[in-house]
Amino acid sequence: MAKEKKLVEQITSMDEDFAQWYTDICKKAELVEYTSVKGCMVIRPYGYAIWENIQRILDGMFKATGHENVCMPMFIPESLLQKEKDHVEGFAPEVAWVTMGGNEKLEDRLCVRPTSETLFCEHYSNIVHSYRDLPKLYNQWVSVVRWEKTTRPFLRSREFLWQEGHTIHATAEEAIEETERMLNVYADFCEKSLAMPVVKGRKTDSDKFAGAEATYAIEALMHDGKALQAGTSHYFGDGFAKAFDIMYTDKENKKVYPHQTSWGVTTRLIGAVIMTHGDNSGLVLPPAVAPIQAVIIPIQQFKEGVLDKANELADKLKAAGVRVKVDDSENSPGWKFAEYEMKGVPVRIELGPKDIEADKCVVCTRYSGEKKDVALESLTETVVGMLEKDIPEGMFAKALENREKHTYSCTTMDEITEALAKNGDGFVKAMWCGEEACEDKVKEVTGVGSRCIPFEQDNLSDKCVCCGKPAKKMVMWGKAY
Amino acid sequence: MAKEKKLVEQITSMDEDFAQWYTDICKKAELVEYTSVKGCMVIRPYGYAIWENIQRILDGMFKATGHENVCMPMFIPESLLQKEKDHVEGFAPEVAWVTMGGNEKLEDRLCVRPTSETLFCEHYSNIVHSYRDLPKLYNQWVSVVRWEKTTRPFLRSREFLWQEGHTIHATAEEAIEETERMLNVYADFCEKSLAMPVVKGRKTDSDKFAGAEATYAIEALMHDGKALQAGTSHYFGDGFAKAFDIMYTDKENKKVYPHQTSWGVTTRLIGAVIMTHGDNSGLVLPPAVAPIQAVIIPIQQFKEGVLDKANELADKLKAAGVRVKVDDSENSPGWKFAEYEMKGVPVRIELGPKDIEADKCVVCTRYSGEKKDVALESLTETVVGMLEKDIPEGMFAKALENREKHTYSCTTMDEITEALAKNGDGFVKAMWCGEEACEDKVKEVTGVGSRCIPFEQDNLSDKCVCCGKPAKKMVMWGKAY
Repeated sequence: MAKEKKLVEQITSMDEDFAQWYTDICKKAELVEYTSVKGCMVIRPYGYAIWENIQRILDGMFKATGHENVCMPMFIPESLLQKEKDHVEGFAPEVAWVTMGGNEKLEDRLCVRPTSETLFCEHYSNIVHSYRDLPKLYNQWVSVVRWEKTTRPFLRSREFLWQEGHTIHATAEEAIEETERMLNVYADFCEKSLAMPVVKGRKTDSDKFAGAEATYAIEALMHDGKALQAGTSHYFGDGFAKAFDIMYTDKENKKVYPHQTSWGVTTRLIGAVIMTHGDNSGLVLPPAVAPIQAVIIPIQQFKEGVLDKANELADKLKAAGVRVKVDDSENSPGWKFAEYEMKGVPVRIELGPKDIEADKCVVCTRYSGEKKDVALESLTETVVGMLEKDIPEGMFAKALENREKHTYSCTTMDEITEALAKNGDGFVKAMWCGEEACEDKVKEVTGVGSRCIPFEQDNLSDKCVCCGKPAKKMVMWGKAY
Repeated sequence: MAKEKKLVEQITSMDEDFAQWYTDICKKAELVEYTSVKGCMVIRPYGYAIWENIQRILDGMFKATGHENVCMPMFIPESLLQKEKDHVEGFAPEVAWVTMGGNEKLEDRLCVRPTSETLFCEHYSNIVHSYRDLPKLYNQWVSVVRWEKTTRPFLRSREFLWQEGHTIHATAEEAIEETERMLNVYADFCEKSLAMPVVKGRKTDSDKFAGAEATYAIEALMHDGKALQAGTSHYFGDGFAKAFDIMYTDKENKKVYPHQTSWGVTTRLIGAVIMTHGDNSGLVLPPAVAPIQAVIIPIQQFKEGVLDKANELADKLKAAGVRVKVDDSENSPGWKFAEYEMKGVPVRIELGPKDIEADKCVVCTRYSGEKKDVALESLTETVVGMLEKDIPEGMFAKALENREKHTYSCTTMDEITEALAKNGDGFVKAMWCGEEACEDKVKEVTGVGSRCIPFEQDNLSDKCVCCGKPAKKMVMWGKAY
């Protein structure tokens, strides 16, 4: 019973210590384990299966929008990294350097890719010559390394898994359209598959990707009122093309520069799921990415017919495409309830001799705690409907309600300070003149920084919340992960 | 027409220069492109799509045999790599070392993983405590780095993609069974999905994996008569467990060491496919891993109804699960024929106005060059049958015939030399006493080294081919990639 004891142990309450609650879930839901490589982690089977589901869905969306997967080397020669000035300035301070190959010292140091714009540019300069070669719509699923000082599982680690899309187009218009298209793909994925509402917007200039003309992002609000950047999409103009001497011959036989984009999401999305939906019983997973979507827990499983019926129901659910598990281990039902709550399994089905006699079972919804009797003959239909519609929609509505409760429209600095003090951290909507000095000052005085300039603008006032001069845009402010 | 000119250019003949033929295919079928990172390559969309198909099929086979995917860090601290003596001796000379993180010099250097036994062992020491925790059947799909001096696309590169399975078991018997099971999975995959016959066997002690008790391998014969190791499966006994202090409490409450395995295949399989099936017109792909399984080439496509009919047929094939493409580009049919031959598309369908009038089309098989008329109404059924059965079986039989033609049974060293001189490089079957000195001498004198001790033994003689002393085993010898 040593194992049973360990698992019924409570996790830290999220109200008491949110950071510890988060770490407890990562460990106790068996998502990750620490290693002796500082800032790097093992993604365990249950955590990795969530990532595989994220990959499968997103990869399908990328391919449906015409993208192809490739694989670039993991190393970038220092001389190549240095070709685009803003880019190298942004990334060089936080890369890992390979200086020895075997026993031989390298002449040109290699960095482990922190991102792969430079490699894609070198490749494009080799394969793009004519307008007929455009566009190239490439993506890769790899890991990258950034030498972070403080790290946390999924949210910030020295190595993390991601996808990076890199595209090259004949015109600026096409490239801008691509940048927006992929931001919309990310937003759709987050809202539909992760049941996580996001704000789409543009980053201010101080917050752009190193080398980009414009960076777009989706921002989500976590349970503690902090913002999490869940995905970014960058428009590069022809800056990288100029730095890497990529030119193509257009239809009029002129040599011109193409236009580029890049876009990415990371394993950070798993952190976002934990902090958007999780509760004090553990993880709460959206059905689309849950490794186990429904668990059947037999009650008095030693009684004749119980396990047979459980397996029969499981087979029907499997045939309908549900990822289902029957837990017939020797642990008690109570232990199993706690275990699958911790692991965030969306639907729990309880089935005992009395249920079978009455031709029904008990179906529990993880995110709401709701329990109901369901006739055995309609179980598959009910569960499929819950997984495809009721649960994702319910989880989304709950998360959206939380976000709206913690979104404050303010017209003065004092209002910002008051709203945060009274209602806790959250998103702040306030007007901005466009000056970096005001952006800095808002952060200094109120603690919230600019997250993005949302595409959906409200006209709260015609004055900057900071300097009072004419305001250009409404900015969404918040504390960030 | 610049593009058209480039592609009808012939590739080097395989009889003239096999190595150049191989490189030509890699480049002209657009599988890879070189980079400024020496020994590393870009895997281009067409090459990567082959790898994605290999991954999908193998991953399904791994999961069907109870394995789960995880992800370990890409770095191994030097101190961790050094824990198992044979292992570090085998790998340390060929690893890439990270010595700087940002601007800071690292105290414990990190190597970029050449393989991940040490990381899995560290993880197992954290999570395996009781017999209830066993077995753990893990796998990961990642890239690894080995600082090779001479490199060739897919066959030997400084970074390559692979999967590495790592399992840990309560008993030696279970671990040995796992080692054999996974070798069989690899052999089945190679023979069924890649249409490539393989010899299953055990490596001699001089050729074992660094740290293993026994290494099993599958060996395939390439078109030039050289052998290619296509996959390996290692049994570690409890050596790693002892080095990493992994112990578990058994059912009798005693602390004992568990037993481990590892097994892997790499992007090298793509090189094996090229050299097993390719010909002087280019790549020849087995249907299971072909990114495009059938291409429809409209003849006189400007004539009314031709493209409509081509698309209608494609839709039917797609609905039957075939990866099909209609090439309605402006290139000539002749150019298209050459292009898809180069890319190794298994089935080509030609459809022109006269075909449509006669309710038929012309179906060509890439590997055999066979052409036949097929009634339009039975096209889908015919193509599916070809892709699932006729083509893989035909390709396998052709490759097997070639291997048998180049497999020589010899009882003296002179016979080996003569057979190779007369019939060209190939597999040599000959008896061996078990002494490393004889193994070395056979290689020195005849040029062929020990590839493996096949599970299927022939009793060619009772004497060692080299020293004449009593022979223990028949060895399969050959020149290796």
